[in-house]
Order: sequence, then C-alpha cells, then structure tokens
Amino acid sequence: MSQVHNFSAGPCILPQEVLKKASEAVINFNNLDLSLIEISHRSVDFVAVMDKATSLVKELLEVPAGYSVIFLQGGASTQFLMVAYNLLTDNGVGAYVNTGAWASKAIKEAGILGKVEVLASSEDKNFTYIPKGYSIPENADYLHITSNNTIFGTQLKEFPECPVTLVCDMSSDIFSKKINVSDFDLIYAGAQKNMGPAGVTMVIVKDEILGKVERTIPSMLDYRIHIKKESMFNTPPVFSVYVSMLTLEWLKSLGGVEAIQMVNEEKAALLYAEIDRNPMFRGVVEEQDRSAMNATFVLEDESMNDAFNQALSDARINGLKGHRSVGGFRASMYNALPLESVQVLVNTMTKFSESHGN
Amino acid sequence: MSQVHNFSAGPCILPQEVLKKASEAVINFNNLDLSLIEISHRSVDFVAVMDKATSLVKELLEVPAGYSVIFLQGGASTQFLMVAYNLLTDNGVGAYVNTGAWASKAIKEAGILGKVEVLASSEDKNFTYIPKGYSIPENADYLHITSNNTIFGTQLKEFPECPVTLVCDMSSDIFSKKINVSDFDLIYAGAQKNMGPAGVTMVIVKDEILGKVERTIPSMLDYRIHIKKESMFNTPPVFSVYVSMLTLEWLKSLGGVEAIQMVNEEKAALLYAEIDRNPMFRGVVEEQDRSAMNATFVLEDESMNDAFNQALSDARINGLKGHRSVGGFRASMYNALPLESVQVLVNTMTKFSESHGN
Repeated sequence: MSQVHNFSAGPCILPQEVLKKASEAVINFNNLDLSLIEISHRSVDFVAVMDKATSLVKELLEVPAGYSVIFLQGGASTQFLMVAYNLLTDNGVGAYVNTGAWASKAIKEAGILGKVEVLASSEDKNFTYIPKGYSIPENADYLHITSNNTIFGTQLKEFPECPVTLVCDMSSDIFSKKINVSDFDLIYAGAQKNMGPAGVTMVIVKDEILGKVERTIPSMLDYRIHIKKESMFNTPPVFSVYVSMLTLEWLKSLGGVEAIQMVNEEKAALLYAEIDRNPMFRGVVEEQDRSAMNATFVLEDESMNDAFNQALSDARINGLKGHRSVGGFRASMYNALPLESVQVLVNTMTKFSESHGN
Repeated sequence: MSQVHNFSAGPCILPQEVLKKASEAVINFNNLDLSLIEISHRSVDFVAVMDKATSLVKELLEVPAGYSVIFLQGGASTQFLMVAYNLLTDNGVGAYVNTGAWASKAIKEAGILGKVEVLASSEDKNFTYIPKGYSIPENADYLHITSNNTIFGTQLKEFPECPVTLVCDMSSDIFSKKINVSDFDLIYAGAQKNMGPAGVTMVIVKDEILGKVERTIPSMLDYRIHIKKESMFNTPPVFSVYVSMLTLEWLKSLGGVEAIQMVNEEKAALLYAEIDRNPMFRGVVEEQDRSAMNATFVLEDESMNDAFNQALSDARINGLKGHRSVGGFRASMYNALPLESVQVLVNTMTKFSESHGN
C-alpha cells in the first residue's frame, strides 16, 4: 500500500528511520535484553541518551556558552507559567505580543503571577498577520513572543531588536530554520512538531537571567533546579527524550538545520504557489507573514469542502483539517514531511480544480 | 539467551506482551499506516485510548461515582505542588506524615504555598518504620500520606482513619493490591512502577474537595481544568498514556487487582523468608512495615557486596542496587515481575551463602 501523507499539526510526522529505531528500543534497548522503558533513568544507558539529546541540541543550534539546555515535562503550556515564575518580578512587568491562541494563553498564565502588558496584538483580524513596529518598554522584565503560530499559520520572519530579556515560544518551528540563539535569552518548545513525540519540552536558557525574582519558586517550576540536576531532578519522560534524540540525530545526518531549511522553503514555496495560482483556493493569512510550517487556506466555495476532503482521502492525505477557530484547511509541513508529500497535495489540488472548477 | 530478571525500582519491568504491542504501535497504530506518536491527540483513535485508560482505572480500582480520573505530566513531584495549590487554604494547614524522601519533598513544596504541619516522622531511624498512633488535627485542610516508600522499603498496611481530606501518594504500590478508593479524597501515582512507562501521572480525585481555595490556580496546576478537558487541556504524553492503557488491560486479563495481589504477596513472602532464613542477609526495615513492592536488605558482611553483585550478574539479575541513601540491596517486585524471577533471586542468595558462608 502507498504511504500516508501525514500533514498533522502536531503530534506530527516523524522520520521513518526514527520510528523504526524507537520501535526496536521498546523491545530491546542497546542490546541489554531490556526495553528502553523498563530501565532506570539513572542507568548508564539512559544517562547517555539524555547527554546525547542535550549535546545534539547545542550542536544543531550552535548554542553559545552561558546557555543551558534542559528537557522538561508539561508542554509549552507549563512554560507559560514557568517563564513568569522565573522572570516576572514583584513590581515588574512582562511584555507580550499576542499573535494567536498560544500567545493568549501565555499572557493569561503570566497574569496570575504579576503584571503583564500586551504591546501588540493581531486579534482584531483573527490573528491573520504578525504585528510589527511596536515599541518595547525598556523597563519590562522580558518580552515574550511566539515565533510560529500553528493554528493560524503565521510566522515571524524577523525577530524584534529587543532591549530587554527576550523569551520565545518556538514550539512549532524550532529546528526548521537557522536561528541565532544569542539573540534570545530563553527559548522553549514542546517536542511534538520538529523534535519528537509529545511528552517532553525543551528549554534553552541563558543562565544569567535566572535568580532575579523575589518569590520562592516551587522545585518543579524552577529552571535552576532542572539545570543543576541535568534534567534528572525527577524521572524524565524517558521514551520522549529518546525519540527526540533519534530525531535530532536524523536531522544532523541530513546536514542539520541549514539543510532542512532549504527543503522546508522548497515545500512551502510549492504549496503557496498552488494556493495563489489555483482560483479555487485562497490563503488565510497575509502573504508576508505566511508560515513555512503551517499553511492555512480555504476553498473559495465552501460548499466544495466535502468533495475536496474526499479527494484528499483518495490521495491518502491525512491531517489537513483546519483548526476549529480558523476553519478550512491547514497543511503542516514539518521537517519530517517529504517534499513528495507536498507534491502529492499540490497535484490533488490541481486535479480537484480541473475536475470541479468552472 | 535466558531472560533478564528485572528488579529495577522504576522505571521498571513491564509485561512482555505490553512491550510487544507498544513496539508495534510505534510503527503502525490501529492499522492506520501511521505511528501512534505521529497522529493528532484529538484524533478518534487517540481519544479512544485516553477514554479506555480512564475507564480501566475506574474499573480496576472500582472508583465510585463523584471521583474523576485524569492523566497529567510532571510526575509525583508536580503533584507535591498541585496538592497544595488546590487544597491548602490561606489560613489553613496541610498535615503530613513523613515516611521518606518523597514525603519530605511533598512537605517542602507545600510549605512554599502555605502552612504545613508534620504530624509524625520516621526520620529518626532513617525511615525504617511507619509511624503510627499520631492524631490528626480536625481543622487541617488535608492529611497527606505516602502508601509505599520506594527508597526505604516500607509500606502502610493500614490507612489511618481520617477526619479530614485524605491525600495519598500511591506511586509505587497503586494497582498492586486492593484499596478502597472511597477511603481517600485524592490519590496520585507516577505511572512508572505498576502502571506504565515514565512520563504520565494518574490522579483520582473526589470532585467535591476542589474549588475551596482562595488563590487563582494556574491552568496547568488546576485539577478542575484537567477534569473538565478530560486530560486533554494540552497535548497529553501520548505514548505513556497508551502503554499505561495496555498495562491496565494486561492487569484486567490476569483477573485484576485482587489476582495480582495474591501473586505479589507470594513473591514478597518468598523473598522475605529467604532474607530471614539466610544468616548472610538482614532486612533493613521493621518487619511489620515491610513493603511487598520494594524489599531492602543488606549483607551482614558488607565486604561480600562485590561477590554478591557478581553472583547477581551471573544469574542475569538486574536493578538490585540499593538507593544511595540506604545502601545495600533493593529488590523491587512490581506487578510485571514474574514469581520465577523472585525464585531465581532466592536461589542465588541461597547458593551464595552455601558457597561463601561460614
């Protein structure tokens, strides 16, 4: 049977060779005659996995000295809280740019702990663009931005010049393109897009920004504790860390972030060209803010949705349903999605318009 | 090659048939031609997994009406904090019994949020017994106990009659023996002992105890939000939930908690009989408080440790090193450990004393 073309928004497609190795490790890990998931996380074999995952992050993103890399549980949703717990001072303010559902949640959670200020928002147009040209108060404890908005399909093409601590939620585009880590003070990302399966969250943090708040931070929410314990303060999510390590190894074998960026740009160009060319389809967001990871689009005639869904199904294309807050369609084109799958989608769109267009 | 006898304290042995199914699902789940870990957590296929895992918990533990079952991230360590966040009022007090390292951590984390009172502690004798006969203040917001102390090898054989909300950390003996859920108001357990792999934590909570604190609870720490969202407030740890579901199915197929309890009692009796019989070995904790899950023991002559470790290794016995705070040896005999493995350990101890004893 032909392969399924998996455009899921996350959890999402992972490389076949990663899945194969992960499947084998569930039975027999490192020839121990034991499963990966039934050995101690403090065993030599698993500590090596955690170390490798950490060093691959540092290598692939060229993380400079003075930054720590940790793996945590709880998803980006827990980071919304941890960022404020660790960085928002009693009399300070956390500055936010609201570019979508996840940014809105980050703002809400920080507001429980202290004062937040929303510098700019694209909520007025259902988050179909990235606000630009806002000014950043120099007395803010930090500025929080979201690099890619999975639900709406927008992406920051340039990061703001930031006079204060810069925090970025990169959950849905980390490892998809080159970034300059030294432009940021804290980067976090749920693994389940370009890095691995659900259940683990990566944080890259500049050590010197920590330890400046007055409050006592609960242990599980304190970055310094997880850094000191090298992501082993408590039992880590062993399987998710291992599969992330495998996925980063795969990325390295392909040539790293710069190599995958070229493929990702090619995939995005191919799909957006068809969206723009084909009169039956229309892109949802402003052209200059289009995401290379998540392309959102609608049929001009929504009564054709069922027919298009049938065409997708016939082509074994999976996961293209748009988020309920946007509607229409969303093609997520993460690192592991082959160019071929995008070509199949484009061909399906072309054929659909040929057979159903006016 | 013969099997490895896996006495790891956690993450620990899981049933072979569970590992086999989990391994297959990583390649092709439900004949979707997609991996379990690359589909949406909101897909029909994964929602069914979450529902099944939840209903199996309810069925196996006979959870009464009025209780909710949820699956979270962050381990028991996050529960130490969540319990206080959700139950400890501004002017109230959280009562604790300190029976070991994990209870100590629970006390510390709650102390960040409010007032705690330690009713009893066995720290005076390095946690080698379970304190009894303490009185529980009727004005406490809750009493927090730990049913089994993995590190020290003690276990509560009877739960206290409790006039206030009763919270129990059952991470290391949940599903190992029959409990009466209605005796408790909140039970939590990291999965990585009797329930599944690391990365997911189960909580059973009586709905009516929630919503009584004054503070605003951050979303990820609010039991009510996770209950309302049926463990899908954010992306759940898909793989860990799935393997937990498989493990609970396996337990059900064996005859459930009462059936496994008989096997667990048999395993514990076999090992403790050898510890008591064999003059080379000595149990660490008081006899009436011995854990059926984790048996801690030492060699009377510690200079024989290396030789005994060699004998264990020769018999393919794994994971018997005691925790650094106790030393000696610890045999963890969780649900999935076959009686045969305990027999192999006992035989190894017997043979060791025959060849090395005086």
